Amino acid sequence: MNNAMFDLKSYLFAKQQKINKTLDKILTQESNSKRIVSAMRHSLMASGKRLRPVLCIAAAEAAGGTEENVLYPACALEMIHTYSLIHDDLPAMDNDELRRGLPTCHVAFDEATAILAGDALLTLSFEILASNNKRHFKKEINESKRLDVIKSVAIASGFRGMIAGQMMDIESQGSKLDSNKLEILHFSKTGALIEASVYSGAVLGGGSRTQIEQLKSYGRNIGLAFQVADDILDVEGDPKVMGKAARKDADLDKSTYPSVIGIEKSREFAEKLVNNALKNIDSFGNRSDPLAAIARYIIERDK
Amino acid sequence: MNNAMFDLKSYLFAKQQKINKTLDKILTQESNSKRIVSAMRHSLMASGKRLRPVLCIAAAEAAGGTEENVLYPACALEMIHTYSLIHDDLPAMDNDELRRGLPTCHVAFDEATAILAGDALLTLSFEILASNNKRHFKKEINESKRLDVIKSVAIASGFRGMIAGQMMDIESQGSKLDSNKLEILHFSKTGALIEASVYSGAVLGGGSRTQIEQLKSYGRNIGLAFQVADDILDVEGDPKVMGKAARKDADLDKSTYPSVIGIEKSREFAEKLVNNALKNIDSFGNRSDPLAAIARYIIERDK
Repeated sequence: MNNAMFDLKSYLFAKQQKINKTLDKILTQESNSKRIVSAMRHSLMASGKRLRPVLCIAAAEAAGGTEENVLYPACALEMIHTYSLIHDDLPAMDNDELRRGLPTCHVAFDEATAILAGDALLTLSFEILASNNKRHFKKEINESKRLDVIKSVAIASGFRGMIAGQMMDIESQGSKLDSNKLEILHFSKTGALIEASVYSGAVLGGGSRTQIEQLKSYGRNIGLAFQVADDILDVEGDPKVMGKAARKDADLDKSTYPSVIGIEKSREFAEKLVNNALKNIDSFGNRSDPLAAIARYIIERDK
Repeated sequence: MNNAMFDLKSYLFAKQQKINKTLDKILTQESNSKRIVSAMRHSLMASGKRLRPVLCIAAAEAAGGTEENVLYPACALEMIHTYSLIHDDLPAMDNDELRRGLPTCHVAFDEATAILAGDALLTLSFEILASNNKRHFKKEINESKRLDVIKSVAIASGFRGMIAGQMMDIESQGSKLDSNKLEILHFSKTGALIEASVYSGAVLGGGSRTQIEQLKSYGRNIGLAFQVADDILDVEGDPKVMGKAARKDADLDKSTYPSVIGIEKSREFAEKLVNNALKNIDSFGNRSDPLAAIARYIIERDK
């Protein structure tokens, strides 16, 4: 089912180039405030893995679509991710000074600008999702799909998804969560938007109902695996490689998988999730090689 | 053209009741974080004029549509307005402690919660705009209109609209703007979302191209008039009536219409804008009575 010869590194590099070029292009739009655009650009164009847009594109390709079908929506997902990082890094939240190897937005600019830059990226993401960018969408079939994607992305990143996760994360500092609550927190905080990224690609790429469901399950599994791997990295990772501080969770007294079930069991859990994800895309053949490779990469990465 | 007998007070009261009921209903959705919903509710359900949703409904009615066509989208506009207030009130921005007669969100909760509650209301607004709420939309004709509205609202509230205005407002503190720059700032900060509210109502209410253009111009004129009137109120208003602090602009050394062109010329300018707005809706007959009354109210209100 999975092609061991598939070259993930080249695949990621090619997609990241395309995504970065498109993000750059989107940010050339005029604004009456140069400062807000500089701040948006600072955080958005810092080197990132571009995991969410890559997943969106890879899911579209697995479902029979093309990169062109979803390039702009994919970029919108990266904007939502970046906005969440900018706000999470604020002094009132995680108070981080380093992100993607650069000063965080409020350090490079100031708090007010960082709050507004995050707001602006979130808002821009919905503009992009609602726009018929470069006429890549076939109008007659895709308006209801586009509305479905906007709604799904909003739910995943909103008060029943990512924002609930961040709020729970803050609320639970200093208290010990059980593994059930931790799973809800982790899925909300990170998994929901990852799942939505895969879902969006599957829908806009023209997947069948069954394919969309399979890809969504894949997204759900790797979304949670990603956050478990992040917890492990926070304990074991090298800040220089990660481009951000390590051991922040322990400093902030957060419940994490390693702290709740131990580091070995956390590794086993992440591996189980990735194996489930691989099963979800079993029927796609070679077309899901990138998704399979990304699933494995998620628990093997060092940043 | 305008019916002097039209009872604006009753009209506003009836619409506000309906809007508040709908907002309340939307906020009963489950979340894994009770705290985030409490904070959203605190700011959203505080007594507000509901100007933007009322304008959306009134524009829909003027264009031949009904309240039911636009009730949910109208509520989405109030959510965007409320999110902008929550973020603008933050210590890093205007540092306000009182809003709509209640403690601001970060005072009632804390800064992290207020940032997230604002983010959540913004995100929820796009979920609502993308949702086929209660099947009030006729699917076949309205999907492209709904996408148009999402895009227009995102542009009006994003980095080329409201957020640019807030950024310019902060950037210009301590420096004197000329009246041209002040108009750009004011239109961006307040006018753009008001214009988009009227536009959304006109589009979703089924207005003709000409009607939509006329209503949009009306929205543009009253949007700017509203901010000029706000500047005047900040100088002359009673904090007890307004439910928020007065004389904040002078304290923060902000450029305002009264500080740039004087209070009398500001009044004349606001009146001119409202007269232009009344001309824009001249051809609608009685159907635009509410819009005409709201235009006059905007410069006659005491809060």
